[in-house]
Amino acid sequence: MGTHLITGGAGFVSVNLTRQLLARGECVIAVDDLSRGKLAFLDEFEANPHFHFVKQDCSAAAQLRECVLDFHRKDAIAEAWLLAANSDIPAGVTDPHVDLSRTFMTTFATLLVVRELGIPIVHFASSSAVYGDHSDLAVAENNGPLEPISNYGAMKLASEAQIRAAVESYLKRANIFRFPNVVGLPATHGIILDLIRKACHSSNGGFDVLGDGTQQKVYLHIADLVEAMLYIRDNAKGRYNVYNIGPQDDGVSVRGIAEAVRDRVALGAELWFSGGDRGWVGDVPRFRYDTGKLAALGWRPRMGSSEAIARAVDEIAREEAGG
Amino acid sequence: MGTHLITGGAGFVSVNLTRQLLARGECVIAVDDLSRGKLAFLDEFEANPHFHFVKQDCSAAAQLRECVLDFHRKDAIAEAWLLAANSDIPAGVTDPHVDLSRTFMTTFATLLVVRELGIPIVHFASSSAVYGDHSDLAVAENNGPLEPISNYGAMKLASEAQIRAAVESYLKRANIFRFPNVVGLPATHGIILDLIRKACHSSNGGFDVLGDGTQQKVYLHIADLVEAMLYIRDNAKGRYNVYNIGPQDDGVSVRGIAEAVRDRVALGAELWFSGGDRGWVGDVPRFRYDTGKLAALGWRPRMGSSEAIARAVDEIAREEAGG
Repeated sequence: MGTHLITGGAGFVSVNLTRQLLARGECVIAVDDLSRGKLAFLDEFEANPHFHFVKQDCSAAAQLRECVLDFHRKDAIAEAWLLAANSDIPAGVTDPHVDLSRTFMTTFATLLVVRELGIPIVHFASSSAVYGDHSDLAVAENNGPLEPISNYGAMKLASEAQIRAAVESYLKRANIFRFPNVVGLPATHGIILDLIRKACHSSNGGFDVLGDGTQQKVYLHIADLVEAMLYIRDNAKGRYNVYNIGPQDDGVSVRGIAEAVRDRVALGAELWFSGGDRGWVGDVPRFRYDTGKLAALGWRPRMGSSEAIARAVDEIAREEAGG
Repeated sequence: MGTHLITGGAGFVSVNLTRQLLARGECVIAVDDLSRGKLAFLDEFEANPHFHFVKQDCSAAAQLRECVLDFHRKDAIAEAWLLAANSDIPAGVTDPHVDLSRTFMTTFATLLVVRELGIPIVHFASSSAVYGDHSDLAVAENNGPLEPISNYGAMKLASEAQIRAAVESYLKRANIFRFPNVVGLPATHGIILDLIRKACHSSNGGFDVLGDGTQQKVYLHIADLVEAMLYIRDNAKGRYNVYNIGPQDDGVSVRGIAEAVRDRVALGAELWFSGGDRGWVGDVPRFRYDTGKLAALGWRPRMGSSEAIARAVDEIAREEAGG
């Protein structure tokens, strides 16, 4: 079994990935600066001798190298999962440094360490945000143009590009996962958590919803996402593999999500839409994904967008209610 | 007439652009750290009251802002030409920091200043390197995938992405010029200069040529390039305009360039090819460009690849011989 380095190791996706890797008998070194990830998310792994956590900012290459060197000498790191990133898109619009340092420089610095230690394989959490606004066109991996409309999307694209150049020069293999919106536990941010909190704390018969409710996006449940990442890791054979990961449907509207939340935690409450077709700068109002490449590789999600939302609403509502 | 900020203002393209802008009666503030650009290139503008030069590293936002603020207060900067970049691709392969700081951070920092000063229009010197290796396919602006195989190409793509996000947020307009290989004076680097120097200093009847000579690329003369940049600036109407700039032909092989050099400066010399289909990591062996979008806008180059090479070989040989 191999040793896996996971950057952003205390974040939403990493925790779920770590659970699966440990279940397979692999070793995990999770590195996170805990700026958004939470130590409490890792409690379940505490007793596992195959799990190690290091608190470190992954955008500092020399320190990151220092942190993982002892582990690497004992048992060479076979794969690096680059999951560190800013997850607050509006924060990155206000201050471009946020996505520079947390979305791009984490990738850049980790690649320096990967090269120095000779780690052969890299997996990268990219995003549908690299495509920008393609309206109703279902975008496939090879489609252009790539015109991200947020600094977050820009720095995800920059990261992909840097990894692609690394494949030419020193990496044996890289898998690029273009994530859609992902829902599930542990919920750190996102529309479901926001709406559940608003709905639960509302005292006047309704709650606010950003936009006009028509924004429609695809959603994947975290359980499906991690399964897809591992499936691609196990089955993609190229040196540089880019995959859209997502459900094969047209998604769910913001209104649909708000209604699911209402029906679960605030039955009968009114929905107050703020209006406009975008919630914030850099928000893509409508987005569709072509996931044919991943389907051709042999993987399909268990849940569609609506089921993913329903399950996540239930899970998060339960968690917010205190378990 | 407006005031133009040019970063990398003492470089090859900037000098030729400045000459045209000044001829139109515009004002130019050229900023350059002189790491590769040369002060001597700017001698011809010294007496022009519409030209100002400031020595400054453009990747340092606060200092860059400081440098241009007085000019901006007197006469608001209307357009920023982002031409600062590392021009030594192999150096960037060895050390990724080179393209990070000189190709990407120059763009990132200049955009911070552009936003703060409210400069509405940005022009960016991008590159065919953003496409990566598409073999014989003639790539158009909207074609994907974008898979740069050098850190230089990666950081040019990162810059494009950051500018695209800025258009969504605060820029009025951005023009992205995807340059092909560009030849002409003042020559600071590149295959023609290398070959002329090798041919001139050879004392044993021949000179070395990297690769097997079959690498074929399109070349544009700098006079055509600057004309195209200004044409796009004057005529493109969108908020975010991406244009391939190049000749409408299949290019010239390395052998063809070596022969042009031989015939100009070392008649009868032998050509010694090092072999292999790439000169260095990140070198694209064959590249074709679809320039239909620029043609549709109404612009066509005066010189094809062969004429551009012939004229540049003559100009550079003359310069190397001491004028």
